[in-house]
Amino acid sequence: MEKFVEQGLLYDFYGELLTDHQKSIYEDAVFGDLSLGEIAKEYNISRQGVHDLIRRCDNSLQDYENKLHLVQKFMTIKQKVEEIGKLTENDSLSREDLGKCMKEIAGQILEEL
Amino acid sequence: MEKFVEQGLLYDFYGELLTDHQKSIYEDAVFGDLSLGEIAKEYNISRQGVHDLIRRCDNSLQDYENKLHLVQKFMTIKQKVEEIGKLTENDSLSREDLGKCMKEIAGQILEEL
Repeated sequence: MEKFVEQGLLYDFYGELLTDHQKSIYEDAVFGDLSLGEIAKEYNISRQGVHDLIRRCDNSLQDYENKLHLVQKFMTIKQKVEEIGKLTENDSLSREDLGKCMKEIAGQILEEL
Repeated sequence: MEKFVEQGLLYDFYGELLTDHQKSIYEDAVFGDLSLGEIAKEYNISRQGVHDLIRRCDNSLQDYENKLHLVQKFMTIKQKVEEIGKLTENDSLSREDLGKCMKEIAGQILEEL
């Protein structure tokens, strides 16, 4: 997965576990358009300080994922739910076959939960 | 929700964020059959110490849920997936109606993710 996409997903899931200060700088640096220099100036800390804070946040977010695996779990569920959506549009499937497929996928999702 | 069920769900989701020491005592006390006195003896701490540790763990787990709402989210998804399972068994639904219902529920689940 692209680093930026991965950071976004991890932040979506675990961002609330960072402090407000960390969240604010992380958002500006990773999702905003500001440079390290601009952020350093805005928060009155060194460029190195901004850089270290972002690295620490990335590590924290990754640690949470290593322990809880929620991003991975949600990605699997999302894929299966999208499969359900696609199957409903497959007109060559009979009522019976559609029901069977759905039931199977539903079972797979429940195992993930 | 019953307190014990709630503790189990919270522990399932966020238990890995506790320390090994906390996990060990919490599991013995909440999910095991040991009394506070027995646990205190086993870990060579006071009964009050065991009691405080459990309370702190409960608070931590609840704090994580208050910030991330993952138990709540998963419960909602589970309910909707079970609905999919039930609908496939409803023989009075036509192929078209079954497809429509599934698509709608799949969309609702994706919104939760």
